[in-house]
Amino acid sequence: MSTVTYNAIGYAAQNAKAPLAPMQFNRRAPRPDDVAIEVLYCGVCHSDIHQARNDWGFATYPLMPGHEIVGKVTAIGDKVTKHKVGDLVGVGCMVDSCRTCSACKEDLEQYCLEGMTQTYASPDRIDGTLTMGGYSSNMVVSEHFVLSIPKNLDPASAAPLLCAGITTYSPLVHYGVEPGDKVGILGMGGLGHMGIKFAKAMGAEVTLFTRSQAKAEEAYRQGADHVIVSTDAEQMKAAAGTFNFLLDTIPVPHDLNPYLETLAYDGVHILVGLIEPVEPALNAFNLVFKRRVLAGSLIGGIAETQEMLNFSAEHGITCDIEMLDIKNINEAFERVVKGDVKYRFVIDMKTLKA
Amino acid sequence: MSTVTYNAIGYAAQNAKAPLAPMQFNRRAPRPDDVAIEVLYCGVCHSDIHQARNDWGFATYPLMPGHEIVGKVTAIGDKVTKHKVGDLVGVGCMVDSCRTCSACKEDLEQYCLEGMTQTYASPDRIDGTLTMGGYSSNMVVSEHFVLSIPKNLDPASAAPLLCAGITTYSPLVHYGVEPGDKVGILGMGGLGHMGIKFAKAMGAEVTLFTRSQAKAEEAYRQGADHVIVSTDAEQMKAAAGTFNFLLDTIPVPHDLNPYLETLAYDGVHILVGLIEPVEPALNAFNLVFKRRVLAGSLIGGIAETQEMLNFSAEHGITCDIEMLDIKNINEAFERVVKGDVKYRFVIDMKTLKA
Repeated sequence: MSTVTYNAIGYAAQNAKAPLAPMQFNRRAPRPDDVAIEVLYCGVCHSDIHQARNDWGFATYPLMPGHEIVGKVTAIGDKVTKHKVGDLVGVGCMVDSCRTCSACKEDLEQYCLEGMTQTYASPDRIDGTLTMGGYSSNMVVSEHFVLSIPKNLDPASAAPLLCAGITTYSPLVHYGVEPGDKVGILGMGGLGHMGIKFAKAMGAEVTLFTRSQAKAEEAYRQGADHVIVSTDAEQMKAAAGTFNFLLDTIPVPHDLNPYLETLAYDGVHILVGLIEPVEPALNAFNLVFKRRVLAGSLIGGIAETQEMLNFSAEHGITCDIEMLDIKNINEAFERVVKGDVKYRFVIDMKTLKA
Repeated sequence: MSTVTYNAIGYAAQNAKAPLAPMQFNRRAPRPDDVAIEVLYCGVCHSDIHQARNDWGFATYPLMPGHEIVGKVTAIGDKVTKHKVGDLVGVGCMVDSCRTCSACKEDLEQYCLEGMTQTYASPDRIDGTLTMGGYSSNMVVSEHFVLSIPKNLDPASAAPLLCAGITTYSPLVHYGVEPGDKVGILGMGGLGHMGIKFAKAMGAEVTLFTRSQAKAEEAYRQGADHVIVSTDAEQMKAAAGTFNFLLDTIPVPHDLNPYLETLAYDGVHILVGLIEPVEPALNAFNLVFKRRVLAGSLIGGIAETQEMLNFSAEHGITCDIEMLDIKNINEAFERVVKGDVKYRFVIDMKTLKA
């Protein structure tokens, strides 16, 4: 176990109005169960922007985003058994949890009854310092929250699996998607295109719901079997009662009722993008009369995240990315807000030193 | 098989503004698969009132309500094998369905892809005549939709099991309530008091949520372990994150968010009373951050209804009723609207002849 702290550099927002800018800081010396990581790649998630700008009202500053992290192990604490120096590893949205509650014991650390420690802008459970995310040269994370990146995954394209990947994989598994099931994916951004890939790899018949016919060709390229233009009432009507699952990645309020009507009885509509009030109002009739389910899901537990990485390796699934020089992070944020990226920016951390 | 039609009498509304009044009509002669039934008792469900008054906009007249029916078999078609003359039987909310679709084949006739034939105000699938409900001297129903009433159930108190009973039993079974689970029952009318009884018989720890402390004593008498006054913010806050299931029998729009917050992660909020838009708006955050589920459920299939009747007999469960002379049906409707009944009126059909 090293007692040295790490001189680190990263990009952080100093307040909700400030652009991200370079910041020098120290990472803690590894504790006995910690893994020190040189960050190689970090995905840019839309929630990084929401947090940097305090859109949700609970940001803390300085705020250094980044929770889709792939890097190389540079040191380990003396009780670490899961990882060794030189390993390619990943860190997602969580770096700690209470580890003793019922949720943690069920490998559902994301629902920890005490609240998970998020990868950035959360107080560390031991020393109370603010966690700093992966837009940085290095990380120090307890081994339980460090994932192994399978060798045949491209490290840069694998980074977004740590958030966009697990967020879409977990509910498809939890709600039991099986070969032959009809799965609708709502929206095709970072989450949506991963939803198409995972649902397809699970053997489902996959339909993209999109507002614009323009995305059809791209959806087929991603593996979708069908495309439904959600603004076309005729197409929506023709789909009534036919879907088993809807994976709803749309991050802004939208009318759920027309989508619910496309579900068969016992169909499940899973929210993974929306965290705001459901407006216009959800019609309870659409649930009761077909025993339909409206569900939500948040990332996935650590064990399941490893399972997702292994599944991705087995099926050759990664995220479609655009590589980013960290010096262009603020322009990239603007492009993410406009939906102008296919489908994830991934920061090449070499650009931090250049 | 008889070719004789039955001279029947019942109470029907001739239009949405008219009170119920006696009406002479004919029941069909039994078809080969039909069971003819002398109605002994019929429960008064709130939906009888909504339909008689066309509150939902799809009523057809003359409208003779009644779908909580217990009676005695008086004749059977020549292919009937399930019931014999003299048997005590029940009829619930459905009298037919397509019987060939995936839902029907899964014993979920209530979700029949062609739509179930309701016990009243639905066109018969064979001759197109309007079905007439159980506020009547007799019924003629296909044997598949006729239930056996176990001998040790009081026939009058068993009648409401055919709707209020199965509506609450089915989702508790479907969502897997187990001994030790914490189940909240929202509202204590006809459905709510049955929910308490069934959840308790399944071994759950049962809490009634009610707006008024005045119902507490009565809730304990019904078997509830705890009572939470939903208008008391402190009591609601203290319950945060503790429930596995909520059975929501409240039939009018209400804020679901404070209730959802009482659910643990993976908790399920089941709507069985509400069929209107959910207002104020459901907060998606309350689903996503704890993987909670908002579900709906509609009565139950025929096989499950028989299972519920058998379960009720085994556990000594019936509905708390107030016996009604059919001549007082319009006054009874007013009292149901005001919530002034514990907990179901049941028409004693002898009063039809008196």
